[in-house]
Amino acid sequence: MDVWHRERQSKGADLMIRIEKVLHSVQSEYQKIEVFETETFGRVLVIDGYLMLTEKDEFIYHEMIVHVPMSVLRDPKRALVIGGGDGGTVRELVRHGCLERIDFVEIDGEVIETSKRFFPSVASGMGDPRVTTHIADGVEFVAESKDGYDLIIVDSTDPFVGPGEGLFTEAFYGDCASILNEGGILVNQHESPYYGENAEIARKTHLKLRRVFPVCTVYQAFIPTYPSGHWLFGFASKGTDPLSDPVPGRMDGIATRYFNEDVRKASFALPNYVRSLLE
Amino acid sequence: MDVWHRERQSKGADLMIRIEKVLHSVQSEYQKIEVFETETFGRVLVIDGYLMLTEKDEFIYHEMIVHVPMSVLRDPKRALVIGGGDGGTVRELVRHGCLERIDFVEIDGEVIETSKRFFPSVASGMGDPRVTTHIADGVEFVAESKDGYDLIIVDSTDPFVGPGEGLFTEAFYGDCASILNEGGILVNQHESPYYGENAEIARKTHLKLRRVFPVCTVYQAFIPTYPSGHWLFGFASKGTDPLSDPVPGRMDGIATRYFNEDVRKASFALPNYVRSLLE
Repeated sequence: MDVWHRERQSKGADLMIRIEKVLHSVQSEYQKIEVFETETFGRVLVIDGYLMLTEKDEFIYHEMIVHVPMSVLRDPKRALVIGGGDGGTVRELVRHGCLERIDFVEIDGEVIETSKRFFPSVASGMGDPRVTTHIADGVEFVAESKDGYDLIIVDSTDPFVGPGEGLFTEAFYGDCASILNEGGILVNQHESPYYGENAEIARKTHLKLRRVFPVCTVYQAFIPTYPSGHWLFGFASKGTDPLSDPVPGRMDGIATRYFNEDVRKASFALPNYVRSLLE
Repeated sequence: MDVWHRERQSKGADLMIRIEKVLHSVQSEYQKIEVFETETFGRVLVIDGYLMLTEKDEFIYHEMIVHVPMSVLRDPKRALVIGGGDGGTVRELVRHGCLERIDFVEIDGEVIETSKRFFPSVASGMGDPRVTTHIADGVEFVAESKDGYDLIIVDSTDPFVGPGEGLFTEAFYGDCASILNEGGILVNQHESPYYGENAEIARKTHLKLRRVFPVCTVYQAFIPTYPSGHWLFGFASKGTDPLSDPVPGRMDGIATRYFNEDVRKASFALPNYVRSLLE
């Protein structure tokens, strides 16, 4: 008998993915973590029943959350990653030789261990000597930090999954702003504009960020295994324009499968209904 | 007990949509046509088990298949629509006052009747006096036509659904080219680059079009209810550059919910893996 992962994407809209084999299933202190082997998507990571990444398309999310801000940051040296325990965001960051230090803050060490064991190619950047891993609450880490960062990436789950909720508050964004250097950028996982539940979170998240940052917009990517496939990232800064010209040479030697300079600029072109949602 | 529409999107990847009510189900000469009432998507049209349109997002597909080419056609007077029996493409075309004649060729009169009855807002353009509806085989219509068109839109089902197959052949594209005026554009439903089956059709379709047309590319839109949500349209012409500046005033007075000039240009920015697929 076939076994399927069934995920509610919206009211009366479910995605089903057939599981060839359950490779891992553990209840951590924070959430249920599962790894399935599938035919079409390769291995998939599921947290509290929600698909977090698949081997087939994780490159899209991770390239877009990293290389879009990195393309326009003038002289980035320090980056902070909150969440993203799978390591995909860190993997893309360490490809940038200009970064001198990356603080990687994940609340749930089990996610990191799971990724190292079952997704070694995703977790491959964690061992880079510039990376310091902190098993800690991102909200507290940011509130207590005095460091100055050029880039903060909030690679969270949905606010209704596991411990993601605190990463969607105005207080948290304010704390992030206070440790961002001049010209620094905050990028975050920003939900989808399509299904009502996601769209409402996207709208509220944008309003909160807008109250904190003078420059604030969203950009988008085709991520087929997330609900609706139309996924948003928030881009907030103290001054850096998302549509600035790219820094010459920044992507030299970094081969990508989704990202390119045309895609970067295009990702900020929002359909009218998305513009309306965010107004 | 809940009733669901279950659609195979790829091997081991199914989309499930809960049906509140079956409004219509008929086996035409060519295909099975069903209309369901749903909570999240409103009414949906399903042909041979594949979702063709939903009230929630049909505007995305129809705006993008029409206004992208219309934005750059210098002096379009005559348009030909092959397929698209629901009428959504015709509805968007008749909003352009510059068009003098629209030939609308649908092989299956049952699709037209179903749309008029259950999707009146989608079918609303069919009564425009400039529209001539032909219940006919699009392949034969194009082969026998001597008319010159400025725009041909091939709004087909997938080649494996109903009578769609003939609209994916090089011979058909050649016949289209022979009735296109200088500077004319052909746009077609071009599948998705993501799942293997769709991607293979997209690749082959592009190669066929490229053998016929000197200008040939694809553009994309976020269409959440099609497999992967990453959908392609083909853009082929005898000379008109897809990235030309838009014709001034062409979209004046045409309010859209997805399309805008930034989105138009951005839709041609293809991710690297899509570029590779089409090479």
